Amino acid sequence: MNPALREKLTTAPVAGLSAQLRKRGLEGVFIDGVRPLAPGQSFVGTARTLRFLPLREDLFTEYGGGYNAQKRTFDAVEEGEVLVIEARGEKGSATLGDVLAIRAHARGAAAIVTDGGVRDAEAVAAVGIPVFSAGAHPAVLGRKHVPWDADLAIACGGATVQPGDILVGDADGVIVIPPALAEEVADDALAQEDEDGWIAARVAEGHPIQGLFPMNAEWRAKYDAEQSTP
Amino acid sequence: MNPALREKLTTAPVAGLSAQLRKRGLEGVFIDGVRPLAPGQSFVGTARTLRFLPLREDLFTEYGGGYNAQKRTFDAVEEGEVLVIEARGEKGSATLGDVLAIRAHARGAAAIVTDGGVRDAEAVAAVGIPVFSAGAHPAVLGRKHVPWDADLAIACGGATVQPGDILVGDADGVIVIPPALAEEVADDALAQEDEDGWIAARVAEGHPIQGLFPMNAEWRAKYDAEQSTP
Amino acid sequence: MNPALREKLTTAPVAGLSAQLRKRGLEGVFIDGVRPLAPGQSFVGTARTLRFLPLREDLFTEYGGGYNAQKRTFDAVEEGEVLVIEARGEKGSATLGDVLAIRAHARGAAAIVTDGGVRDAEAVAAVGIPVFSAGAHPAVLGRKHVPWDADLAIACGGATVQPGDILVGDADGVIVIPPALAEEVADDALAQEDEDGWIAARVAEGHPIQGLFPMNAEWRAKYDAEQSTP
Amino acid sequence: MNPALREKLTTAPVAGLSAQLRKRGLEGVFIDGVRPLAPGQSFVGTARTLRFLPLREDLFTEYGGGYNAQKRTFDAVEEGEVLVIEARGEKGSATLGDVLAIRAHARGAAAIVTDGGVRDAEAVAAVGIPVFSAGAHPAVLGRKHVPWDADLAIACGGATVQPGDILVGDADGVIVIPPALAEEVADDALAQEDEDGWIAARVAEGHPIQGLFPMNAEWRAKYDAEQSTP
Amino acid sequence: MNPALREKLTTAPVAGLSAQLRKRGLEGVFIDGVRPLAPGQSFVGTARTLRFLPLREDLFTEYGGGYNAQKRTFDAVEEGEVLVIEARGEKGSATLGDVLAIRAHARGAAAIVTDGGVRDAEAVAAVGIPVFSAGAHPAVLGRKHVPWDADLAIACGGATVQPGDILVGDADGVIVIPPALAEEVADDALAQEDEDGWIAARVAEGHPIQGLFPMNAEWRAKYDAEQSTP
Amino acid sequence: MNPALREKLTTAPVAGLSAQLRKRGLEGVFIDGVRPLAPGQSFVGTARTLRFLPLREDLFTEYGGGYNAQKRTFDAVEEGEVLVIEARGEKGSATLGDVLAIRAHARGAAAIVTDGGVRDAEAVAAVGIPVFSAGAHPAVLGRKHVPWDADLAIACGGATVQPGDILVGDADGVIVIPPALAEEVADDALAQEDEDGWIAARVAEGHPIQGLFPMNAEWRAKYDAEQSTP
Repeated sequence: MNPALREKLTTAPVAGLSAQLRKRGLEGVFIDGVRPLAPGQSFVGTARTLRFLPLREDLFTEYGGGYNAQKRTFDAVEEGEVLVIEARGEKGSATLGDVLAIRAHARGAAAIVTDGGVRDAEAVAAVGIPVFSAGAHPAVLGRKHVPWDADLAIACGGATVQPGDILVGDADGVIVIPPALAEEVADDALAQEDEDGWIAARVAEGHPIQGLFPMNAEWRAKYDAEQSTP
Repeated sequence: MNPALREKLTTAPVAGLSAQLRKRGLEGVFIDGVRPLAPGQSFVGTARTLRFLPLREDLFTEYGGGYNAQKRTFDAVEEGEVLVIEARGEKGSATLGDVLAIRAHARGAAAIVTDGGVRDAEAVAAVGIPVFSAGAHPAVLGRKHVPWDADLAIACGGATVQPGDILVGDADGVIVIPPALAEEVADDALAQEDEDGWIAARVAEGHPIQGLFPMNAEWRAKYDAEQSTP
Repeated sequence: MNPALREKLTTAPVAGLSAQLRKRGLEGVFIDGVRPLAPGQSFVGTARTLRFLPLREDLFTEYGGGYNAQKRTFDAVEEGEVLVIEARGEKGSATLGDVLAIRAHARGAAAIVTDGGVRDAEAVAAVGIPVFSAGAHPAVLGRKHVPWDADLAIACGGATVQPGDILVGDADGVIVIPPALAEEVADDALAQEDEDGWIAARVAEGHPIQGLFPMNAEWRAKYDAEQSTP
Repeated sequence: MNPALREKLTTAPVAGLSAQLRKRGLEGVFIDGVRPLAPGQSFVGTARTLRFLPLREDLFTEYGGGYNAQKRTFDAVEEGEVLVIEARGEKGSATLGDVLAIRAHARGAAAIVTDGGVRDAEAVAAVGIPVFSAGAHPAVLGRKHVPWDADLAIACGGATVQPGDILVGDADGVIVIPPALAEEVADDALAQEDEDGWIAARVAEGHPIQGLFPMNAEWRAKYDAEQSTP
Repeated sequence: MNPALREKLTTAPVAGLSAQLRKRGLEGVFIDGVRPLAPGQSFVGTARTLRFLPLREDLFTEYGGGYNAQKRTFDAVEEGEVLVIEARGEKGSATLGDVLAIRAHARGAAAIVTDGGVRDAEAVAAVGIPVFSAGAHPAVLGRKHVPWDADLAIACGGATVQPGDILVGDADGVIVIPPALAEEVADDALAQEDEDGWIAARVAEGHPIQGLFPMNAEWRAKYDAEQSTP
Repeated sequence: MNPALREKLTTAPVAGLSAQLRKRGLEGVFIDGVRPLAPGQSFVGTARTLRFLPLREDLFTEYGGGYNAQKRTFDAVEEGEVLVIEARGEKGSATLGDVLAIRAHARGAAAIVTDGGVRDAEAVAAVGIPVFSAGAHPAVLGRKHVPWDADLAIACGGATVQPGDILVGDADGVIVIPPALAEEVADDALAQEDEDGWIAARVAEGHPIQGLFPMNAEWRAKYDAEQSTP
């Protein structure tokens, strides 16, 4: 992602970006049920995916231990990427702990998003990389999962994520932006943000919603006039 | 609501008020599943209601946009009122954002209660009006709802709310008080609060629960004696 | 519990203890769905159990009021014990309030764990005893429960708890440790904690997961060498 | 509804009708979570609505007994109408029993649809009117509801139903059709049904899906040829 | 239970019995979420209870195998009793199979009620004893449970059941009747059943609900007159 | 699969097979939440997998229509295979209809298993191929899914299924058997079935569970004697 786009996506709120996606017919873009481990965390990045499958003891024996798909992916994540984990919304185990969070952070990853749990959650929160998850759970992943494969399209929190999709997260949640739309969505979201901020100021002054939100011709004329004033 | 009653209801904890309602046979009075956006928020007010219905694309086209039922209600809410939204517990979209929260605040509303989501949740929390909701979600309401009508009895968080009902919220949750009962419920809750505070102090001193909570004759005599002491 | 064991269990994270239990074939040891009322709370103690049954009006009349099973148990809890309540995960009422929390604290209890709600939650959080619960709810227990019996094996948060079992809770959650295993589990968790801390430091330096987590012979040799160095 | 339209809607499967609604951009039209009490029941009719609100003891006292909103609506339902009840998906009580089902049947109602329960379910199933519900429950409605109002837009099974909307139900479920679209949706569903039936016959003969479903030019030519052959 | 009472309770529908319990203030009497394995099954009996706790591997090793609490209880159930199992609504394993169902049947038990699963469900359904459960599941109980104790008050399907309580089940569901109320509840339910049957016949003739259900003075006079006519 | 193994697996009940898997340490083998469309259906086959991802409008446009992954897989399924679909337990749309069921049947597939819905469910049930699903829903798959890829390991009903795994379904549910274990699991299940049948006959004669289930030395001697008798 080029730095200018990253900057715009960092400035635009997730709520505003999602409204622009909706205008383009995209509503299935929300990774729901995840929250940041530490309040105030937000991020922008491109997706690197990792898929867990439900625990099956024979498969765990073969694929669960050692340098498994999970660990290989944390070693492979690159600068600016968001490591996204499909864990089927399972809250009864963790999908990562502090050592792996430190590794992702050291690799320069932008964030970790999992619709499963996190263990040693306080230690993970302290690492410094934003981690959005379904919550804390002390169990290792083997209680519920087999780490399986990476770098394919996955389902996370009810949304499909392809490798390379752009993910943006803040206090409202996490959304997925198809890369080809990111530039225009960001631009339009920032423009709308300016407009909404101006409207909010008018409403705070006591003006009614009617005619102002959305703006009628009269209000828009005032807005445009102010915008053009240096 | 007269200021004296408002003052009493502000002082009494929701837990204590609900216990008094239970004594009068009312248990279906809890708006469950909602939490304040900012810790420590509490409120007292009378209900103004707003009802959302499930998204149906044809109805959204007709009723969803422009100066819809939602916006009209935020323009109409009056000082001291609590704007209560029926959103069927749907967490997959917002039911309001910061502009509308600012409008309700500017109108002098006491609070907003919704069993749906809130977008731009950090901005909404910063407005200053208490907002109790099912959580943050970045999507606009049209992902899940059609804003429909107002000022009728609704279901919110599993409780029926009529326009004019008294709502009280604190860290424990939100309850609905039939207006005719509010005065006596508030008085009795405050009296019980005094008594429970005295009991709590005795328990903190090491006295057992037995005979003290509830008080037997001996303990009550001591309590009454202290109360009458200036 | 002897002070040395208590100290070890206090130092070891719940995540680390649960990993040791798993190595011994125990996975059904998590009290899920409970969180501390105040952030940062943690505890170690032995279980004293209390069981609630679903509200049945005739039984509540007979057993719900006065010096019931709940109150008797809070009067009976002893120093270092964790009062554990089976409430079937029911979130629609409280299972205790501030007076009882004060009593447990005055008795020297280590913590209270309930898979039901807590009323006057802010007051309870201020008492000083760690309370892990399914959340705040203002209703008294009689809305959903009859307090029934104590000192028998119960189900809490999906785990079986016997009187005398060791419970440990922190930000990750609460686990149940069979007393006979506690010493070795604590020792091994602390040893593993040292090792994982050392690994974390190496990962923070930029070393990959591969070969290091878990350690191969080369890394282990380095680790062992450092350990033996004063 | 004119008899010709009713006939078409009776012949077309709900699955086919819903596909036509989707082509016109309508997907929020499914009353989910309801099943017929007796296997094989299906229906077509126009909606008459009834709304229940959550039990609140004071309101039940005032509005729950006697000739309440529920009973008035069953007395008022007219021939060919479907009585649709909003019960918030609550399965813990009934929303009607056999006496009311008999009344609706005697009035000539086409069906009853409720996202709540039915009591005396075997007796209700024997009445002869199709009843689609969330299942059987022996409790009277007052355990969970206050019967409230009628003839307004409601939410049932996750779909918005306006009075006068057309409802069609079969083994697949129940859908809501905006009246203005009913004719064309029915016509196109029947045409598609013919086509799909012809395709199904070809597939049964062993032809692959590829090129046939949907039909390519070659297959369509054959289909058209057969259609024009008397 | 004396045969006359058993006969009355067999004749009265569960819906009618529950309405009489409600008149006496009892609503927490429904074992919800259970259905008969074979359609048309119904039963009357007194409760013998059995409690399962969540799987904990150490406890299963000690208590799960051999002649465990489950098997002892099936050997002990007596004629006319209903074996009621607390399984916490867990659907991911069975709580009995055909051998134990045959044993209960051979002992003369009236029914088995479990809020968990049943394995070999077709074979169990063929045994001839009514079995109400949360559904079929092939896994043995050890996947989710430790069979624990018997003959104590338990929670089943959201209701408290004491040993000796009367249970009645039919297509609507299962209810719990305190023994001391059974006679009057049965008598009043049968009387109401007569009255409702007469009302149903009038409604089938085309009379409106208004004034008839419940009956006004005029209708009651007609009803009473017919009743007194031989 | 060789015919002899298929025959054994067809004869052995799923409950018995799952007990043998458990003896070998495998419990994560249940595809839960699926039921046959027609009562009495059962099957044995090897898995061919198909994966759906959550609806994302841009991806549906690109991959959802025409000869998509779903249709390609139904054209490719081979004799004796079970087509298994990952639909994330989503019940709000179908994952197949009658045309595709006919195709699978024509190809000689042994069954279809989906943890999503089925449309035209009555027509599908009439095709003759066993279909186990989460239930009927009239919507086409595009309401909730994008058909994505095939022939990789998937999650279905909470179990991991690899291409080539053996699946067996009957009234109790569906299980996954690793191919390498199938022969011994089938043999042992059939042997256990004989034994359990003999035990069931003894219990039906009135013998207690104690000592018989499992058999003590005395009972086993009798059993062995009878077995060896021609």
